[in-house]
Amino acid sequence: MGSFSTLSRSSSRLLFRQLFENESFTYTYLLADISHPDKPALLIDPVDRAVDRDLNLVRELGLKLIYAMNTHVHADHITGTGLIKGKVPGVKSVISKASGSKADVFVEHGDKISFGNLFLEVRATPGHTVGCVTYVTGDGPDQPQPRMAFTGDALLVRGCGRTDFQGGSSEQLYKSVHSQIFTLPKETLVYPGHDYKGFTVTTVGEEMLYNPRLTKDEETFGSIMQNLNLPYPDMIDVALPANMVCGLQD
Amino acid sequence: MGSFSTLSRSSSRLLFRQLFENESFTYTYLLADISHPDKPALLIDPVDRAVDRDLNLVRELGLKLIYAMNTHVHADHITGTGLIKGKVPGVKSVISKASGSKADVFVEHGDKISFGNLFLEVRATPGHTVGCVTYVTGDGPDQPQPRMAFTGDALLVRGCGRTDFQGGSSEQLYKSVHSQIFTLPKETLVYPGHDYKGFTVTTVGEEMLYNPRLTKDEETFGSIMQNLNLPYPDMIDVALPANMVCGLQD
Repeated sequence: MGSFSTLSRSSSRLLFRQLFENESFTYTYLLADISHPDKPALLIDPVDRAVDRDLNLVRELGLKLIYAMNTHVHADHITGTGLIKGKVPGVKSVISKASGSKADVFVEHGDKISFGNLFLEVRATPGHTVGCVTYVTGDGPDQPQPRMAFTGDALLVRGCGRTDFQGGSSEQLYKSVHSQIFTLPKETLVYPGHDYKGFTVTTVGEEMLYNPRLTKDEETFGSIMQNLNLPYPDMIDVALPANMVCGLQD
Repeated sequence: MGSFSTLSRSSSRLLFRQLFENESFTYTYLLADISHPDKPALLIDPVDRAVDRDLNLVRELGLKLIYAMNTHVHADHITGTGLIKGKVPGVKSVISKASGSKADVFVEHGDKISFGNLFLEVRATPGHTVGCVTYVTGDGPDQPQPRMAFTGDALLVRGCGRTDFQGGSSEQLYKSVHSQIFTLPKETLVYPGHDYKGFTVTTVGEEMLYNPRLTKDEETFGSIMQNLNLPYPDMIDVALPANMVCGLQD
């Protein structure tokens, strides 16, 4: 159940960094294949305010950024993908087709996103929003072990994203997590889109045992999600229109 | 230069978690040997406000906490070691002898702290305070690769701790980092005591190239440290007396 607990030699080509944006409590992830001569890299869920930090790190590490990806259309911060495209020519923005958002590359369930000899698998995990996807590192002997799942807001450490706007649906979220995330090996490292309590990672096995919402039956889960009484998100009216166009009104 | 970039099969027994306390921007680290039947574990730099979170995680992961350790006497938050000792009988608090603080176990340069079949090596790295140590995972084929250095405030990501109180000395800090941290293999993962910009980890190689202070010569470093003009730490008058006695006035 531990992070790192079964990382094997096949992880040696993956450079991985977790980055935190402390106004929106957002995690951004940098992945690169450093065994490839180009050191191709991608960023998952970059935040506009942190783009200079992220790009400076990419430069210092000698990586070539090829993709700036989103797990979904965020309601609580503005994505950095548009800014990144303006600063690093050639970078392609990536989001799900189902999101209805603007991007260079639209992905669907089952697609693969390659960077060097590594790849991410796309799993549709709607429910927090209609277009949420989880990116999972590849399955295979030459891919990182254990696998790593970037779940956005579908599955958080001991929690999950709300389901009361942006086409959210507690029924869909329950089905998504159980069919697409909890079916991964238990040692799979789960890297969430946010954490508000200072956790950085969890595992599929841990969440299957201890997630206070998703360990319940579907009906109880629906009732929990209907009774969260969360406030209207602070930034939603600014963030949603911006994020539908990569964070830039161009 | 990447985190995870050369993690080998020998890491399979280490469970590792990085935890963040967002009022003081402090990182707490949980390490355990999960290949040992007892799953013995230790916490480095726990924060009083986050003790319940940390101990709950230890319980959920089925670990046996044996040590609650500090890299130094903190001036910006109250250590959780005293609270932990009160909540988990048998846990021993650990700090350097040079700190002058109260604890169950006093460590000195060159000491080893064993948990199961894994161990941490103690390196004296004074300069931020007179009693700062860096804990480094063991050297050997059955220890985690790459090595991991828990540097407290001696070395931060692209920075370092201030040297203007608690027996601080820029000359000592420069010597400590260059002789005790920059001599580790370049791929060694550096886990800092704090980060204020959302970085979670760096490497020895990266800091040797890009640390804006410690890449300078000793004289320039001294001048930088003398001219930081930092405010008096908010919590120092509360935190120092408390931390000299494990965070508890008992």
